[in-house]
Amino acid sequence: MKTTDKLKNKFKDQLFISVGLDTDIRKIPNHLLSGNNPVLNFNKTIIENTYEKAAAYKINFAFYERNGAEGIKTLEDTLKYIPGNLTIIADAKRGDIGNTAEMYAKAIFDQFNCDAVTLHPYMGFDSIKPFLNYSDKLSYILGLTSNAGAADFEKLKLANGKFLYQEVIDKIIEWNKFNNLGVVFGATNLEELNQNLEKLKNLPVLLPGIGAQGGNLEEIIRLFKINKISDFLINISRGLIYADNSIDFGKKISEKLDEFNNRIQNILNN
Amino acid sequence: MKTTDKLKNKFKDQLFISVGLDTDIRKIPNHLLSGNNPVLNFNKTIIENTYEKAAAYKINFAFYERNGAEGIKTLEDTLKYIPGNLTIIADAKRGDIGNTAEMYAKAIFDQFNCDAVTLHPYMGFDSIKPFLNYSDKLSYILGLTSNAGAADFEKLKLANGKFLYQEVIDKIIEWNKFNNLGVVFGATNLEELNQNLEKLKNLPVLLPGIGAQGGNLEEIIRLFKINKISDFLINISRGLIYADNSIDFGKKISEKLDEFNNRIQNILNN
Repeated sequence: MKTTDKLKNKFKDQLFISVGLDTDIRKIPNHLLSGNNPVLNFNKTIIENTYEKAAAYKINFAFYERNGAEGIKTLEDTLKYIPGNLTIIADAKRGDIGNTAEMYAKAIFDQFNCDAVTLHPYMGFDSIKPFLNYSDKLSYILGLTSNAGAADFEKLKLANGKFLYQEVIDKIIEWNKFNNLGVVFGATNLEELNQNLEKLKNLPVLLPGIGAQGGNLEEIIRLFKINKISDFLINISRGLIYADNSIDFGKKISEKLDEFNNRIQNILNN
Repeated sequence: MKTTDKLKNKFKDQLFISVGLDTDIRKIPNHLLSGNNPVLNFNKTIIENTYEKAAAYKINFAFYERNGAEGIKTLEDTLKYIPGNLTIIADAKRGDIGNTAEMYAKAIFDQFNCDAVTLHPYMGFDSIKPFLNYSDKLSYILGLTSNAGAADFEKLKLANGKFLYQEVIDKIIEWNKFNNLGVVFGATNLEELNQNLEKLKNLPVLLPGIGAQGGNLEEIIRLFKINKISDFLINISRGLIYADNSIDFGKKISEKLDEFNNRIQNILNN
């Protein structure tokens, strides 16, 4: 199924949360450590307890690459537990010249069979094009990120009067002939979110920065509701998957996800 | 050994070429395809025939990720063939928020034990910092790249009068407290190279774009010679490793590398 259709089905059910599997062995419940492949077992439990109420899973490749080939095997095995009606976002933030970008696209869409990816815009159109050619998939390009370093380059003012991240978003819209491009916009940038709603209306938006990074969930949902923006994913990683360390962590995380969903739905429905 | 010291030893011997292992199974000699792990055998032959006259190897991660865990295993096995006095550059072009960048840095420097890495600047200082903390390693940050897409964002004029890539280079210089940062500058940008020599004097420079991409080797070496820039690596990937398809491809590629070295040394010594 086309990624945008998978997502639409979830949005219809008012499910907007992407569960971020940034799994760090130093942070998972202790009782898992004595077993075989603790990271895989942790992910499996999280998925089993959240797949009916999540819209997507975002796999942060760094946390798997950190363990080399073995880590990538755990990533591959994790993906097998995710039901096909959920969107798998490869949070890989790749970006390279054309022939290399083609290899990254094959890795993410053909080899790992992910539904979506995150990409760096810095190297321009030919670094995006090989991903664009997968018309059923979805590529979220970094616009304005959630970290402090966003100020270093992304928020620089250009000679044309726009900020760099705004120029990037304009280019994404221009390049989006197949309706398979989206934008990453950090939830910590509430003011900029407010100022760029007209642009963001035209693209799927992936919002990291809620939870551990301090973005304000209610404010964002309110803004999107008022402005009729409905194609968005709120990613929560650390603020969700490490919510509990007990033997029952799966159930607790399921309840925590209910809480997030309720907070979103309360605003949308009232 | 500190990466910059490894490189200095090679520069003293007038060896400036980084051999790019962008190994694509569709392009390697046919006779390898019937054997076990053709990509690994190809890499092994290339390394055995070039390690005495190369300054570094640049491993393009995309070409290994393309085959998932198995591909990463081939990458790991390839690295074992590279002698310790040669610099291994992880051409991974990573870039993410702090806690994720930390995982990428661990992957590249601790797990794969590479000596250097390529990084995206877009997300700013905190996406670079975890790499910076490895004071013995070297991180080449993208400045101006060799592809057409460099025009989309990198060459945009900022309100402060600089081009974005120039602002990036200035920041790299500012952040380079431990002398372990460098810059990627595409060899296809001869005019910009000429205009930014004063900045580039302050940083190790990695130059892709010679060979398949059409950068002019002689012109660049001449510029660097005149301006006393000696901390640079010229990367050649496709223009070298696919130079021959015969059973003797190792020997032919060794001769091809001699040719490149001679072209550089002829200019430096005359």
